Amino acid sequence: MNTDKTRITIIGMGLIGGSLGLAIKKALGDQVRLTGVDREEETLRLALEQGAADHVTSDAGSGAIQADIIFLCIPVLQMVPVIKQIVPALKPGAILTDVGSTKCQITETILSIIPPEVHYVPGHPMAGKEKNGITAADQDLFLGKWFIITPYPSVSPQAAQTLADLIKQIGAKVTVMDMETHDWCTAIISHVPHVAAAAMVNLLEYSPDFESSLKLAGGGFKDTTRIASSSPDMWADICMTNGEAINDNLEKLQRILGEVIAAIRTGNRPYIHNFFQIAKRRRDELLVCEQEII
Amino acid sequence: MNTDKTRITIIGMGLIGGSLGLAIKKALGDQVRLTGVDREEETLRLALEQGAADHVTSDAGSGAIQADIIFLCIPVLQMVPVIKQIVPALKPGAILTDVGSTKCQITETILSIIPPEVHYVPGHPMAGKEKNGITAADQDLFLGKWFIITPYPSVSPQAAQTLADLIKQIGAKVTVMDMETHDWCTAIISHVPHVAAAAMVNLLEYSPDFESSLKLAGGGFKDTTRIASSSPDMWADICMTNGEAINDNLEKLQRILGEVIAAIRTGNRPYIHNFFQIAKRRRDELLVCEQEII
Repeated sequence: MNTDKTRITIIGMGLIGGSLGLAIKKALGDQVRLTGVDREEETLRLALEQGAADHVTSDAGSGAIQADIIFLCIPVLQMVPVIKQIVPALKPGAILTDVGSTKCQITETILSIIPPEVHYVPGHPMAGKEKNGITAADQDLFLGKWFIITPYPSVSPQAAQTLADLIKQIGAKVTVMDMETHDWCTAIISHVPHVAAAAMVNLLEYSPDFESSLKLAGGGFKDTTRIASSSPDMWADICMTNGEAINDNLEKLQRILGEVIAAIRTGNRPYIHNFFQIAKRRRDELLVCEQEII
Repeated sequence: MNTDKTRITIIGMGLIGGSLGLAIKKALGDQVRLTGVDREEETLRLALEQGAADHVTSDAGSGAIQADIIFLCIPVLQMVPVIKQIVPALKPGAILTDVGSTKCQITETILSIIPPEVHYVPGHPMAGKEKNGITAADQDLFLGKWFIITPYPSVSPQAAQTLADLIKQIGAKVTVMDMETHDWCTAIISHVPHVAAAAMVNLLEYSPDFESSLKLAGGGFKDTTRIASSSPDMWADICMTNGEAINDNLEKLQRILGEVIAAIRTGNRPYIHNFFQIAKRRRDELLVCEQEII
């Protein structure tokens, strides 16, 4: 057994965990000893077959023994029971991180259950697909994407740096953001659009003619609702752990729609034109800004 | 002058009109004499340069003289003034059609202003892009796409057949749909998603940190809001001419969002999970159905 190797354990070998495993092995090869943990035997078999892990186990506790870095790649509300299970196995100095889409609530809970000699560094890669599971995993999923680290006052700077260095090695761009800003901005830019996309698909229930609707469904509908094909488990947990910011912005979205309804009812074309024009300008600007920032 | 040629006039050489011109010339070449009409001289220059028209003019009236088929490829509310302008030039038996996204209101108006010897056949190609203008035109835009014809009781079956034959020649699939079904289904599958996409972009106004939001904007946000970059003029007209169906469904969307808000507030995870699961199942099914129907 080569003790010089960095021992990395990924808990949850789905789309993100599997892609992380592939990306780390691609970047670091034999410099790391990568353990994949999942409840599903088939997932573990595929993880090994695809080279997303060197070793696999369905037992999180034994998978975390001696690990230097542990990634939690599971829906946010599943993290606490899993952490309770692995805490006895965590060695002093181990770095625990996660890839959850909400940070404030879960960070507070995690800090209350891990021993002080374990370093928790909250993370959130801005990468995903509407497909789930290890079969959708992709070694290049994080390439050129932002990987957000959301520190808290007592975070270990050294642990955060170690994590950031690893993330950069898989080709992602690391940035630091305070977790309140993260959760609020993510609600607007990601969580509310997911809810709205699902709501638009569910609106089809009221379609007077499903087959006609299918014919009328152009690329616009497919793109707008693409994220509605995401994992219900993951998204239910996100709604449960960032409820305040999501609800506040869903209510704002309702109000914006209400203003459009009122303008349509009164035949106020200038209002509607302005509404679309502002949106177009802002989105076009956003794409330009994004290119500049990258 | 070869009188055997079918004379086609396209009024509005933007994305749809320009693509139609390119597609018709690609399919029929010298069998048609294609006149392009637009208010913008630069658009006309490009239309000629790209081969989207054989002749161009900025005067709709003279462009429509002797035309066998006239396509109106302009925002819905601009159609009536243009038709009034070309009515004196229309020859008996001419087929007038359009590509507007709303049909009931505009058909009623158009039928009230054209002479009985001109045959109006309402059309709606399910093709588009978020880019506008002749520079975005594409000769393959309609390839394999649905082109809806929405007849009314007194429509000329022969004129509808002539139009359908032409449409098939540019590679689109023709289907017939009654216009009430069309307008209601289109509200659900296209108009409401456009409004919602624009609303989500405008929600960014409330972002506490624009640069952070940019970093957090993954592919999901870009896809969900892609159609918010569409033409404000076109979409304002659509809202003005299909207001009842759009508002009814926007109100339903508000209610669906309200139910999500209530479930998040009470921590009702099973409700939220079910909401996302139904959406995922329905969208995944829809994509399968669509493949079968095509």
